[in-house]
Amino acid sequence: MKILTGTLTQLQKQVAAREQNLTQNTAVQTTVQEILANVKAKGDAALRNYSMQLDHVSIDDLRVPQATIDAALANLSPKLLTALNLAKTNITSYHQLEISHGFIDSPSAGIIRGQKVTPLDAVGLYVPGGTAAYPSTILMTAIPAKLAGVKKIVMVTPPQKEGLNPVVLAAAKLAGIDEIYQIGGAQAIGALAFGTETIPRVDKIMGPGNQYVAEAKKQVFGAVAIDMIAGPSEIGIIADDSADPVRVAADLLSQAEHDPNARAMLVTPSEKLAEAVSDQVEIQLATLPRAAIARTAIRNQGFIAVVNDTDAAFTLINTIAPEHLEIQLPDPITYLNQIQHAGSVFLGENAAEPVGDYVAGPNHVLPTAGSARFFSPLGVYDFVKRTQFIQYSSEALARQADAIVTLARTEGLDGHAEAILKRTAR
Amino acid sequence: MKILTGTLTQLQKQVAAREQNLTQNTAVQTTVQEILANVKAKGDAALRNYSMQLDHVSIDDLRVPQATIDAALANLSPKLLTALNLAKTNITSYHQLEISHGFIDSPSAGIIRGQKVTPLDAVGLYVPGGTAAYPSTILMTAIPAKLAGVKKIVMVTPPQKEGLNPVVLAAAKLAGIDEIYQIGGAQAIGALAFGTETIPRVDKIMGPGNQYVAEAKKQVFGAVAIDMIAGPSEIGIIADDSADPVRVAADLLSQAEHDPNARAMLVTPSEKLAEAVSDQVEIQLATLPRAAIARTAIRNQGFIAVVNDTDAAFTLINTIAPEHLEIQLPDPITYLNQIQHAGSVFLGENAAEPVGDYVAGPNHVLPTAGSARFFSPLGVYDFVKRTQFIQYSSEALARQADAIVTLARTEGLDGHAEAILKRTAR
Repeated sequence: MKILTGTLTQLQKQVAAREQNLTQNTAVQTTVQEILANVKAKGDAALRNYSMQLDHVSIDDLRVPQATIDAALANLSPKLLTALNLAKTNITSYHQLEISHGFIDSPSAGIIRGQKVTPLDAVGLYVPGGTAAYPSTILMTAIPAKLAGVKKIVMVTPPQKEGLNPVVLAAAKLAGIDEIYQIGGAQAIGALAFGTETIPRVDKIMGPGNQYVAEAKKQVFGAVAIDMIAGPSEIGIIADDSADPVRVAADLLSQAEHDPNARAMLVTPSEKLAEAVSDQVEIQLATLPRAAIARTAIRNQGFIAVVNDTDAAFTLINTIAPEHLEIQLPDPITYLNQIQHAGSVFLGENAAEPVGDYVAGPNHVLPTAGSARFFSPLGVYDFVKRTQFIQYSSEALARQADAIVTLARTEGLDGHAEAILKRTAR
Repeated sequence: MKILTGTLTQLQKQVAAREQNLTQNTAVQTTVQEILANVKAKGDAALRNYSMQLDHVSIDDLRVPQATIDAALANLSPKLLTALNLAKTNITSYHQLEISHGFIDSPSAGIIRGQKVTPLDAVGLYVPGGTAAYPSTILMTAIPAKLAGVKKIVMVTPPQKEGLNPVVLAAAKLAGIDEIYQIGGAQAIGALAFGTETIPRVDKIMGPGNQYVAEAKKQVFGAVAIDMIAGPSEIGIIADDSADPVRVAADLLSQAEHDPNARAMLVTPSEKLAEAVSDQVEIQLATLPRAAIARTAIRNQGFIAVVNDTDAAFTLINTIAPEHLEIQLPDPITYLNQIQHAGSVFLGENAAEPVGDYVAGPNHVLPTAGSARFFSPLGVYDFVKRTQFIQYSSEALARQADAIVTLARTEGLDGHAEAILKRTAR
């Protein structure tokens, strides 16, 4: 693995957060505009045409029959069911802690003000097809929605010639998804944003997809809400001499195997650890089933940065704002204060990143490409909205009327002033 | 004013929420792409060129000197200062109630998990030029950011030949804005998203603007976070025979005067009130300074819908999901449960909508065009992000290792399984 040395400033320049790709391909934009317009105008007929044309699948029923979903769960291996149930239990108990409530406040006589928190009515979950259809992600996305109180959770996923993956259907049922439709691409995003004869319109669309899906989400933003834009996975590890190079290397590879563009990074004050991890990565790659992908990722995006001390390690990691951050240092929780930007943090030698991917309970849908600077892990807060309320007595209004009229007139809005004066100037 | 009658279903079809305009003009998209690319490549020089070319202003200092800002506040009329200070006090005390904290949880022996809430480092506030530069909006946007703990709050606003409005500068200082730059349009959004020699890169860009600004925000989304897309203002009023038609009409006009596309709506079970309000609107329009704008809005977008009862009134209003909702009914707070979708609710005859625009404290930056279905009022929650953390003892990992390995292998991710087995299979 590439080992980087230099001053902290030099390292910061070399390893800065990746940029989201902003220069969207105009051809993709135009294609997506056309698909969205077609779905809006022609509904289900457009969806069937695109499935034939783009996915080469002829769909009879857009909606997956409930019997198929029920059978998928009934036929799941007991071992897998146990594992999914453990994940469900822990995801549920963690995300319950994110549930927020409104408040009511009376700051002075005659004034009531507050905020009400209500769930979104309906949300749509895009699940990519093929190998990226992860049952764990279905639990991670649907359970917070369910806890928020969302009444209708709809899943869309590209049709497959051989039928949808039963493990995915089983996970969807376990997670409480209400309806599943076999439709993918920009056309699926259009269906969720506008509604068709069969597919209900939703209020928010979540989930990763290819560049057409991402562009379609951006184009429908405003008509519906969308979640963040997801990029390739990332792991940053801060470790010192106390860390086990075997574990550190295994954790780097567990991210690298996701995607040839995944980014695996170790930042350490120990040259010895740097060398040992680099060797271990090579050793472990020799037997890793997804070695081809992992090797490309390690070669193109991976690095080990050697810094002066742990303070410098945290400064460098905060520059990157990684999706996942492991801290393999003694007393790891004492470093929480030094973490400014990261999606999910794994403290100590036992909390390997896959613990968080599957069973710990915190979400695994996380901000990538430096966006942990401003985005949060997926949570219950993504599935609610707030409504403010205000009540004034006539005495309370009289006390503040002058200020309101002054501000309204300053802004040239005499109608606003009049609405107050019609109440107080009698 | 147009009075609508019919069955609830007929009315729902007639008055459904407005659609956000999705079919973005390709010329606008292309222009914005070009502006953003130029700002990214050429920084300040590009900003100066665009100011000359688009705003016809030659800027010496992009940054407004602190002395100019200080003087603006020092020279503010005492009356206006008192009004702004009242607003600031109430906005602060309300938004303090929105501050959220992280949590720590230990669901079973050896497992710690939790969430840390931290402020964004830097945010950018776009303030439109001309008559739409409202000092109240500056307080509404900057105060929640300040309460969240944002270290750097940057404001951008289009340059004016006659210099920037001192009231706006004074409000910015009062609100705690750290830096003000005189630059507008898509070029200002590019400067905030990428940074230039003078203007710092920020993590989130807030604030309304014209179609170039809105398109630029969509294009930089992902590289930075953005707030919602804002449309013309709206008010819905539910009132019965107990309401004063003079007040109801004044409140409809206080929204209508904002914009020829503003939407003022009354829903009432009382034909008598409907007639009386319609007459009052005409009477009050005769003396309203912004009558030309308000009249156009009332004619094109305004309506009074007569329904059977208050239940039907709430059903119709929930279809519209208005930005502002007034409930002029006896015991108004008892109807909170019937409000599904609205930005801010004004309860009773004294809580005229301008009370909320200026001094009550709840935010006046609110979701429009039906997006109260999924967006929230601007709040402290818009200026923070969350970081999860997980710690496991080796015993805790041993208890859950089987489930993790099973799920990892089901998903074809053997490297994930290996990261666990390297820890437990010894």
